[in-house]
Amino acid sequence: MTETNLTATLLVSCPDQRGLVATVAEFVFRNGGNIIHADQHTDTGEQVFVQRVEWEMADFGIPRESLPAAFQPIADSYGMNWSLHFSDEIPRIAVLVSREGHCLYDLLARRRMGELSADIPIVISNHQNLEKAATDFGAEFFHLPVDAATKPHQEARILEKLREWRIDLVVLARYMQILSPEFVQGYPHSIINIHHSFLPAFAGARPYRQAYQRGVKLIGATAHYATAELDGGPIIAQDTVRVSHRDTEATMVHKGRDLEMVTLARAVELHLEHRTIVYGNKTAVFD
Amino acid sequence: MTETNLTATLLVSCPDQRGLVATVAEFVFRNGGNIIHADQHTDTGEQVFVQRVEWEMADFGIPRESLPAAFQPIADSYGMNWSLHFSDEIPRIAVLVSREGHCLYDLLARRRMGELSADIPIVISNHQNLEKAATDFGAEFFHLPVDAATKPHQEARILEKLREWRIDLVVLARYMQILSPEFVQGYPHSIINIHHSFLPAFAGARPYRQAYQRGVKLIGATAHYATAELDGGPIIAQDTVRVSHRDTEATMVHKGRDLEMVTLARAVELHLEHRTIVYGNKTAVFD
Amino acid sequence: MTETNLTATLLVSCPDQRGLVATVAEFVFRNGGNIIHADQHTDTGEQVFVQRVEWEMADFGIPRESLPAAFQPIADSYGMNWSLHFSDEIPRIAVLVSREGHCLYDLLARRRMGELSADIPIVISNHQNLEKAATDFGAEFFHLPVDAATKPHQEARILEKLREWRIDLVVLARYMQILSPEFVQGYPHSIINIHHSFLPAFAGARPYRQAYQRGVKLIGATAHYATAELDGGPIIAQDTVRVSHRDTEATMVHKGRDLEMVTLARAVELHLEHRTIVYGNKTAVFD
Amino acid sequence: MTETNLTATLLVSCPDQRGLVATVAEFVFRNGGNIIHADQHTDTGEQVFVQRVEWEMADFGIPRESLPAAFQPIADSYGMNWSLHFSDEIPRIAVLVSREGHCLYDLLARRRMGELSADIPIVISNHQNLEKAATDFGAEFFHLPVDAATKPHQEARILEKLREWRIDLVVLARYMQILSPEFVQGYPHSIINIHHSFLPAFAGARPYRQAYQRGVKLIGATAHYATAELDGGPIIAQDTVRVSHRDTEATMVHKGRDLEMVTLARAVELHLEHRTIVYGNKTAVFD
Repeated sequence: MTETNLTATLLVSCPDQRGLVATVAEFVFRNGGNIIHADQHTDTGEQVFVQRVEWEMADFGIPRESLPAAFQPIADSYGMNWSLHFSDEIPRIAVLVSREGHCLYDLLARRRMGELSADIPIVISNHQNLEKAATDFGAEFFHLPVDAATKPHQEARILEKLREWRIDLVVLARYMQILSPEFVQGYPHSIINIHHSFLPAFAGARPYRQAYQRGVKLIGATAHYATAELDGGPIIAQDTVRVSHRDTEATMVHKGRDLEMVTLARAVELHLEHRTIVYGNKTAVFD
Repeated sequence: MTETNLTATLLVSCPDQRGLVATVAEFVFRNGGNIIHADQHTDTGEQVFVQRVEWEMADFGIPRESLPAAFQPIADSYGMNWSLHFSDEIPRIAVLVSREGHCLYDLLARRRMGELSADIPIVISNHQNLEKAATDFGAEFFHLPVDAATKPHQEARILEKLREWRIDLVVLARYMQILSPEFVQGYPHSIINIHHSFLPAFAGARPYRQAYQRGVKLIGATAHYATAELDGGPIIAQDTVRVSHRDTEATMVHKGRDLEMVTLARAVELHLEHRTIVYGNKTAVFD
Repeated sequence: MTETNLTATLLVSCPDQRGLVATVAEFVFRNGGNIIHADQHTDTGEQVFVQRVEWEMADFGIPRESLPAAFQPIADSYGMNWSLHFSDEIPRIAVLVSREGHCLYDLLARRRMGELSADIPIVISNHQNLEKAATDFGAEFFHLPVDAATKPHQEARILEKLREWRIDLVVLARYMQILSPEFVQGYPHSIINIHHSFLPAFAGARPYRQAYQRGVKLIGATAHYATAELDGGPIIAQDTVRVSHRDTEATMVHKGRDLEMVTLARAVELHLEHRTIVYGNKTAVFD
Repeated sequence: MTETNLTATLLVSCPDQRGLVATVAEFVFRNGGNIIHADQHTDTGEQVFVQRVEWEMADFGIPRESLPAAFQPIADSYGMNWSLHFSDEIPRIAVLVSREGHCLYDLLARRRMGELSADIPIVISNHQNLEKAATDFGAEFFHLPVDAATKPHQEARILEKLREWRIDLVVLARYMQILSPEFVQGYPHSIINIHHSFLPAFAGARPYRQAYQRGVKLIGATAHYATAELDGGPIIAQDTVRVSHRDTEATMVHKGRDLEMVTLARAVELHLEHRTIVYGNKTAVFD
């Protein structure tokens, strides 16, 4: 990433008002920024405006370090929630996983092939079996087994690791433990979970068993930001695949794996590219 | 349909036992039947065997009218639920509909183009607006408005029409009234409903509103046999389509229409071709 | 459509330059327009910028009839191709069809249910069998049979009908005759064809036979603007559906019908809502 | 895999004749086999019958080693092509790959997690960059660079490795070199290739560039058995994913990766479970 290629990405959400598109575009244009992606949306039901603008920093009239201060007056006048990201920032991911390794392997391989613009310095698991997966790909592995008695203590240790390793994004890659509301609220819009059903169908435990018993003709996977409400957070990505009466719970589990890994990876990529904006309990995805 | 092309279709379900495939195939073969479709499945979870066999009646050694009696001993020895259908039987459909006409138009047009091997002699609605749709396509239209007070009475009149017109299959093509358990139980596996969500998500009223509020990235449609449990019957067909944060409830309704009409038509066709077998609360679909 | 709800939609394409988003947004904002949809894209490969902006005309400072002249200077300074549409304009569609009626029925039913913001005053066919379909839905039907000898003459008659009925959009709803380049060029980006394959696979005749013979596991449908090159015009919408070794050419034809009618209707809707912009041989679709 | 769980799978293809289903089912039943999967199909266009039957060997009356001889008379009388497989046989896979590692990583991870019932003892590449991927997962890595001059020689060395390591299945996991017809014919129905388009569209080089230039709204991937005709062999699995005008060739490449790896893995699994039967240039897939 040379200075020449550096881009800035501005994410905005605020109450809908006239002139928002013009004002932001004009701010970038007046300062000499070349917009390479701009997208916006008004949710008329919620009366919320959300916008993503990405522009080249080469030739931009405001230096990077002054940009927040320069934009603040606009943000204030419209009551904006906003964040600013530069393309040379490499977020740090912690992957939490239990026994099932498909999502973990997939994320680690993407990272090594350069498809994810992030580092994955640590992997945390309540089981031991995926240690070699992590270390082969250069991640530290921490085994933090959990039972009813040790749960609060182990959660505290996870938090400690996240701080110590300066983690920006937590990915629950089939981590089968429920995190406390306090934990989740400490990482707002920064924990992505993959649930193995097309939510809101089959929330909670054993979704494939539920799907088998209900006799559905589609199974699904849902990647969402974790919130205090289990399986209830803002959805980032969902997908489904056909099943039939021939499928057992076991073959649904098997078919579901591909959905889970692809849907989770897609959501992580969208987050890393700053293409998601959460408002209310929804996610705008500018893909 | 000439005698030469006539086929028989046998549907079987029974507890799983050895020799089922061989016995049925041998019955057809020994009597000179040429099998043109055979499919079977054992649901190992439920320990149920289901089978569909279709063969040409030309040159078959047992005349049509003697066939049930000839097969009965086999059925008895394995404890089979079974039914036998001939390809020259044309089932009679009643379509029940409320204000939304897309599924009705679609079914009527398919019928006229010869894509459905069934007649649609009557359309019943609690609204008046689709009368011309029905009569243009040669169906009688009955307007049976429903309110809390008249509901039992009107349901009785619907039943009367179904009997009078010798109806084999009732299609609820976005009929927005809940039928009583007694009504539904009178037509076991003979009422097909289209629900405008990927069940079991968003059962009940206003599924698109629920979907919009939950912020899902997929909407769906489910065609199922109606049972006494609302939106809980055996699923025949499901499909989903992508939505995004740009979609309002209104655009979800609009996109959902195409799903609903295609999914319902698919389920009706599968039923008419005797490709569905209900066991427990599930449907085997031999497509 | 009351004056209060009236919206204007501006479609723009031009060589990519800085300031385009800001300039157009500022034009709308300065004149008091409330933007209800704005989307834009730069095709970096082609160096083309395309934009769609829709705003409410209520309270807009420039009267409808003066709007083109007011925008012209901006268009000139950036070298824009542009068009302007008002939401109370109801385009007039001619449907051309051969023997297969599924797309025709579908479009006519959508029109009657108010799902298409267009009129369908005429249907033209080289066969007679769909006359009642057209007239039941209030369209004039013209039977213009075609053979090698009469083709140029009949094409001239079709053109005559299009002019006489002031047709804005021609929909080839499985019209199995090839129109001459001269005909097609007379309606640039105003003829939509449905081809029954996922183009560019299986262009030309009998795509389902080709698909069956090749043993594909997916069949598709493609809606595109007709150009002088057969099946080569800008694609608006495509979809696919699974098939298997069990499918014959006949069942592929049957399954394909649903794809064709839904894909064609989607493309027609996108065109009518001014959500498509053609540049080069491609289509930007702002859905 | 204990003796108790051992199953036999019989694959049959032959000219269509009466009595095939009954004869094979009766053979298994008479000898005490419990059928756990039976599926068959007649391709009426090609007049070919194909069948897959899987049964438990526990309590089966014919010992494993005598089974081929016991079945041979049936095969002879119907002119069958047939093969017999036991569930404790673990095929050996060689993966051939160039620079792109996503399919390789995916296959290796599936193997390690026990999702593929096969070994992957060797990986062969014309580049060096994926050596660590292979060795981390316990596979030998052979670097056999290819240019116009060395191609025949290197192909001979690949063949040597395949023989030396007793390879049953060759997987071309984005191997960007064209193998000679002689090579391919030496492994009939035993080389699976993933092509990064929905064949027959965009055969040959740079399919994503072709797709970008054509402006398609779907991209695809196709897994097929390699034959002497490039990208022309029997198709096992295909899938597509939506793209839009926003996609560049680069983002199509990126989105396509997920399709490629999932489609290839699916095809490899189907092959390993003996669920594919090739006849003519088509594949019956009993899933």
